[in-house]
Amino acid sequence: MVSEETMRAAMQAYIDGFEAADVAAIVNLYADDATVEDPVGSEPKRGRAEIEAFYQTAIETGAKLKLSAPIRASHGNSAAMAFEVHLNYQGQAMVISAIDVMTFDEEGKYSSMKAYWGPGDMRMA
Amino acid sequence: MVSEETMRAAMQAYIDGFEAADVAAIVNLYADDATVEDPVGSEPKRGRAEIEAFYQTAIETGAKLKLSAPIRASHGNSAAMAFEVHLNYQGQAMVISAIDVMTFDEEGKYSSMKAYWGPGDMRMA
Repeated sequence: MVSEETMRAAMQAYIDGFEAADVAAIVNLYADDATVEDPVGSEPKRGRAEIEAFYQTAIETGAKLKLSAPIRASHGNSAAMAFEVHLNYQGQAMVISAIDVMTFDEEGKYSSMKAYWGPGDMRMA
Repeated sequence: MVSEETMRAAMQAYIDGFEAADVAAIVNLYADDATVEDPVGSEPKRGRAEIEAFYQTAIETGAKLKLSAPIRASHGNSAAMAFEVHLNYQGQAMVISAIDVMTFDEEGKYSSMKAYWGPGDMRMA
Protein backbone atom coordinates (compact mmCIF):
# COMPACT_ATOMS: atom_id res chain seq x y z
CA MET A 1 0.00 0.00 0.00
CA VAL A 2 1.14 3.53 -0.74
CA SER A 3 2.65 5.27 2.29
CA GLU A 4 1.17 8.17 4.19
CA GLU A 5 4.23 10.27 3.27
CA THR A 6 3.85 9.50 -0.44
CA MET A 7 0.21 10.54 -0.34
CA ARG A 8 0.91 13.77 1.52
CA ALA A 9 3.66 14.67 -0.96
CA ALA A 10 1.39 13.92 -3.91
CA MET A 11 -1.31 16.18 -2.44
CA GLN A 12 1.19 19.01 -1.98
CA ALA A 13 2.39 18.47 -5.57
CA TYR A 14 -1.14 19.22 -6.76
CA ILE A 15 -1.05 22.61 -5.05
CA ASP A 16 2.46 23.22 -6.41
CA GLY A 17 1.29 22.37 -9.92
CA PHE A 18 -1.32 25.11 -9.78
CA GLU A 19 1.22 27.53 -8.33
CA ALA A 20 3.50 26.83 -11.32
CA ALA A 21 0.54 26.84 -13.76
CA ASP A 22 1.91 23.50 -14.97
CA VAL A 23 -0.91 21.44 -16.50
CA ALA A 24 1.39 18.54 -17.40
CA ALA A 25 2.70 18.29 -13.85
CA ILE A 26 -0.85 18.11 -12.48
CA VAL A 27 -2.04 15.58 -15.06
CA ASN A 28 1.04 13.43 -14.37
CA LEU A 29 -0.14 12.97 -10.79
CA TYR A 30 -3.03 10.87 -12.17
CA ALA A 31 -3.13 7.25 -13.29
CA ASP A 32 -4.05 6.83 -16.96
CA ASP A 33 -7.55 5.54 -16.20
CA ALA A 34 -8.30 7.93 -13.34
CA THR A 35 -11.56 9.78 -12.74
CA VAL A 36 -12.11 13.39 -11.66
CA GLU A 37 -15.48 14.42 -10.17
CA ASP A 38 -15.22 18.19 -9.65
CA PRO A 39 -17.59 19.23 -8.23
CA VAL A 40 -19.07 16.10 -6.64
CA GLY A 41 -22.46 15.64 -8.32
CA SER A 42 -21.18 16.45 -11.81
CA GLU A 43 -20.38 13.92 -14.53
CA PRO A 44 -16.86 12.58 -13.85
CA LYS A 45 -14.05 13.16 -16.31
CA ARG A 46 -12.45 9.85 -17.26
CA GLY A 47 -8.95 9.23 -18.58
CA ARG A 48 -6.01 11.37 -19.49
CA ALA A 49 -7.51 13.43 -22.34
CA GLU A 50 -10.58 14.54 -20.40
CA ILE A 51 -8.52 15.23 -17.29
CA GLU A 52 -5.98 17.28 -19.21
CA ALA A 53 -8.72 19.38 -20.83
CA PHE A 54 -10.26 19.98 -17.41
CA TYR A 55 -6.99 21.25 -15.91
CA GLN A 56 -6.13 23.28 -18.99
CA THR A 57 -9.35 25.24 -18.43
CA ALA A 58 -8.67 25.54 -14.70
CA ILE A 59 -5.15 26.85 -15.21
CA GLU A 60 -6.45 29.41 -17.73
CA THR A 61 -8.49 30.98 -14.90
CA GLY A 62 -5.23 31.60 -13.04
CA ALA A 63 -6.42 29.29 -10.26
CA LYS A 64 -4.17 29.12 -7.20
CA LEU A 65 -4.82 26.87 -4.21
CA LYS A 66 -4.35 27.92 -0.60
CA LEU A 67 -4.62 25.23 2.07
CA SER A 68 -7.19 25.98 4.77
CA ALA A 69 -5.65 23.38 7.09
CA PRO A 70 -2.89 20.74 6.91
CA ILE A 71 -3.35 17.87 4.45
CA ARG A 72 -5.01 14.79 5.97
CA ALA A 73 -3.95 11.23 5.09
CA SER A 74 -5.76 8.04 6.16
CA HIS A 75 -5.13 4.45 7.24
CA GLY A 76 -5.93 3.33 3.69
CA ASN A 77 -5.19 4.50 0.14
CA SER A 78 -6.82 7.93 0.42
CA ALA A 79 -5.98 11.46 1.45
CA ALA A 80 -7.95 14.70 1.73
CA MET A 81 -7.36 18.42 1.94
CA ALA A 82 -9.38 21.58 2.54
CA PHE A 83 -8.38 24.64 0.56
CA GLU A 84 -9.56 27.78 -1.19
CA VAL A 85 -9.22 28.21 -4.94
CA HIS A 86 -8.54 31.79 -5.99
CA LEU A 87 -9.33 32.32 -9.65
CA ASN A 88 -10.45 34.85 -12.20
CA TYR A 89 -13.58 34.24 -14.25
CA GLN A 90 -14.38 36.72 -17.01
CA GLY A 91 -12.50 39.46 -15.20
CA GLN A 92 -14.16 38.70 -11.85
CA ALA A 93 -11.96 37.51 -8.98
CA MET A 94 -13.60 34.58 -7.21
CA VAL A 95 -12.92 32.16 -4.39
CA ILE A 96 -14.16 28.58 -4.15
CA SER A 97 -13.85 26.77 -0.81
CA ALA A 98 -13.35 23.08 -1.48
CA ILE A 99 -12.28 19.77 0.00
CA ASP A 100 -10.59 17.34 -2.37
CA VAL A 101 -10.34 13.62 -1.70
CA MET A 102 -7.87 11.55 -3.71
CA THR A 103 -7.55 7.76 -3.82
CA PHE A 104 -4.19 6.29 -4.80
CA ASP A 105 -3.02 3.29 -6.78
CA GLU A 106 0.00 1.16 -5.89
CA GLU A 107 2.34 3.49 -7.81
CA GLY A 108 1.23 6.50 -5.78
CA LYS A 109 -0.78 8.00 -8.64
CA TYR A 110 -4.29 9.34 -8.09
CA SER A 111 -6.86 6.77 -9.19
CA SER A 112 -9.70 9.15 -8.39
CA MET A 113 -10.34 12.70 -7.25
CA LYS A 114 -13.56 14.10 -5.82
CA ALA A 115 -13.95 17.81 -5.10
CA TYR A 116 -16.58 18.74 -2.53
CA TRP A 117 -17.97 22.24 -3.03
CA GLY A 118 -21.46 23.53 -3.56
CA PRO A 119 -22.93 26.73 -4.96
CA GLY A 120 -22.73 28.20 -1.47
CA ASP A 121 -18.97 27.59 -1.36
CA MET A 122 -18.32 30.06 -4.20
CA ARG A 123 -18.02 33.80 -3.58
CA MET A 124 -16.84 36.96 -5.29
CA ALA A 125 -13.44 38.06 -4.02
CA MET B 1 -32.24 15.48 -3.70
CA VAL B 2 -31.33 16.81 -0.28
CA SER B 3 -30.56 20.54 -0.28
CA GLU B 4 -27.19 22.12 0.30
CA GLU B 5 -28.65 23.91 3.36
CA THR B 6 -29.95 20.65 4.85
CA MET B 7 -26.54 19.02 4.43
CA ARG B 8 -24.68 21.95 5.98
CA ALA B 9 -27.06 21.97 8.96
CA ALA B 10 -26.67 18.22 9.43
CA MET B 11 -22.86 18.58 9.40
CA GLN B 12 -23.03 21.32 12.03
CA ALA B 13 -25.38 19.15 14.11
CA TYR B 14 -22.63 16.52 14.28
CA ILE B 15 -20.26 19.05 15.83
CA ASP B 16 -23.01 20.21 18.17
CA GLY B 17 -23.69 16.63 19.22
CA PHE B 18 -20.11 16.22 20.39
CA GLU B 19 -20.26 19.59 22.14
CA ALA B 20 -23.31 18.40 24.08
CA ALA B 21 -21.78 14.91 24.59
CA ASP B 22 -25.11 13.60 23.24
CA VAL B 23 -24.58 10.16 21.71
CA ALA B 24 -28.26 9.76 20.79
CA ALA B 25 -28.28 13.08 18.93
CA ILE B 26 -25.25 12.02 16.89
CA VAL B 27 -26.56 8.53 16.13
CA ASN B 28 -29.92 10.04 15.10
CA LEU B 29 -28.17 11.89 12.27
CA TYR B 30 -27.57 8.50 10.61
CA ALA B 31 -29.88 6.34 8.54
CA ASP B 32 -30.57 2.91 10.07
CA ASP B 33 -28.38 1.06 7.56
CA ALA B 34 -25.56 3.62 7.45
CA THR B 35 -21.83 2.88 7.47
CA VAL B 36 -19.05 4.63 9.37
CA GLU B 37 -15.42 4.21 8.22
CA ASP B 38 -13.33 6.08 10.81
CA PRO B 39 -10.48 6.18 10.01
CA VAL B 40 -10.63 5.43 6.29
CA GLY B 41 -8.82 2.10 5.85
CA SER B 42 -10.42 0.50 8.92
CA GLU B 43 -13.33 -1.98 8.88
CA PRO B 44 -16.56 0.05 8.56
CA LYS B 45 -19.16 -0.01 11.32
CA ARG B 46 -22.52 -0.98 9.90
CA GLY B 47 -25.97 -0.21 11.29
CA ARG B 48 -27.30 1.52 14.36
CA ALA B 49 -25.88 -0.74 17.09
CA GLU B 50 -22.31 -0.63 15.82
CA ILE B 51 -22.51 3.08 15.15
CA GLU B 52 -23.90 3.80 18.61
CA ALA B 53 -21.11 1.79 20.27
CA PHE B 54 -18.54 3.69 18.24
CA TYR B 55 -19.85 7.10 19.33
CA GLN B 56 -20.33 6.00 22.93
CA THR B 57 -16.59 5.30 23.06
CA ALA B 58 -15.78 8.57 21.30
CA ILE B 59 -17.90 10.63 23.69
CA GLU B 60 -16.23 8.91 26.67
CA THR B 61 -12.91 10.43 25.55
CA GLY B 62 -14.48 13.87 25.93
CA ALA B 63 -14.01 14.48 22.21
CA LYS B 64 -14.87 17.99 21.00
CA LEU B 65 -14.71 19.06 17.35
CA LYS B 66 -13.35 22.41 16.18
CA LEU B 67 -13.83 23.29 12.51
CA SER B 68 -10.59 24.13 10.69
CA ALA B 69 -12.51 25.81 7.85
CA PRO B 70 -16.16 26.30 6.86
CA ILE B 71 -18.20 23.20 6.01
CA ARG B 72 -18.19 22.32 2.29
CA ALA B 73 -21.28 21.00 0.48
CA SER B 74 -21.36 19.67 -3.10
CA HIS B 75 -23.53 19.58 -6.22
CA GLY B 76 -24.63 16.07 -5.22
CA ASN B 77 -25.68 14.25 -2.04
CA SER B 78 -22.40 14.73 -0.13
CA ALA B 79 -20.73 17.22 2.16
CA ALA B 80 -17.30 17.44 3.80
CA MET B 81 -15.60 19.26 6.65
CA ALA B 82 -12.08 19.67 8.02
CA PHE B 83 -11.75 19.84 11.79
CA GLU B 84 -9.63 18.96 14.80
CA VAL B 85 -10.81 16.51 17.42
CA HIS B 86 -9.65 17.35 20.92
CA LEU B 87 -9.88 14.35 23.21
CA ASN B 88 -8.38 12.68 26.24
CA TYR B 89 -6.97 9.18 26.00
CA GLN B 90 -5.82 7.54 29.23
CA GLY B 91 -5.11 10.91 30.79
CA GLN B 92 -3.27 12.22 27.75
CA ALA B 93 -4.72 15.20 25.87
CA MET B 94 -4.58 14.56 22.14
CA VAL B 95 -5.59 16.22 18.89
CA ILE B 96 -6.57 14.43 15.68
CA SER B 97 -6.76 16.47 12.47
CA ALA B 98 -9.45 14.95 10.27
CA ILE B 99 -11.68 15.50 7.26
CA ASP B 100 -15.09 13.83 7.36
CA VAL B 101 -17.15 13.16 4.25
CA MET B 102 -20.84 12.33 4.65
CA THR B 103 -23.26 11.10 1.99
CA PHE B 104 -26.96 11.75 2.51
CA ASP B 105 -30.16 9.87 1.80
CA GLU B 106 -33.40 11.47 0.61
CA GLU B 107 -34.48 12.19 4.20
CA GLY B 108 -31.30 14.14 4.93
CA LYS B 109 -29.80 11.39 7.10
CA TYR B 110 -26.20 10.28 6.69
CA SER B 111 -26.01 7.11 4.60
CA SER B 112 -22.24 6.94 5.03
CA MET B 113 -19.41 8.68 6.83
CA LYS B 114 -15.71 8.44 6.02
CA ALA B 115 -13.10 10.06 8.26
CA TYR B 116 -9.76 10.83 6.62
CA TRP B 117 -6.89 10.91 9.11
CA GLY B 118 -3.65 8.99 9.28
CA PRO B 119 -1.15 8.24 12.04
CA GLY B 120 0.61 11.49 11.15
CA ASP B 121 -2.59 13.46 11.81
CA MET B 122 -2.58 12.58 15.52
CA ARG B 123 -0.53 14.52 18.05
CA MET B 124 -0.16 15.00 21.77
CA ALA B 125 -1.76 18.25 22.90
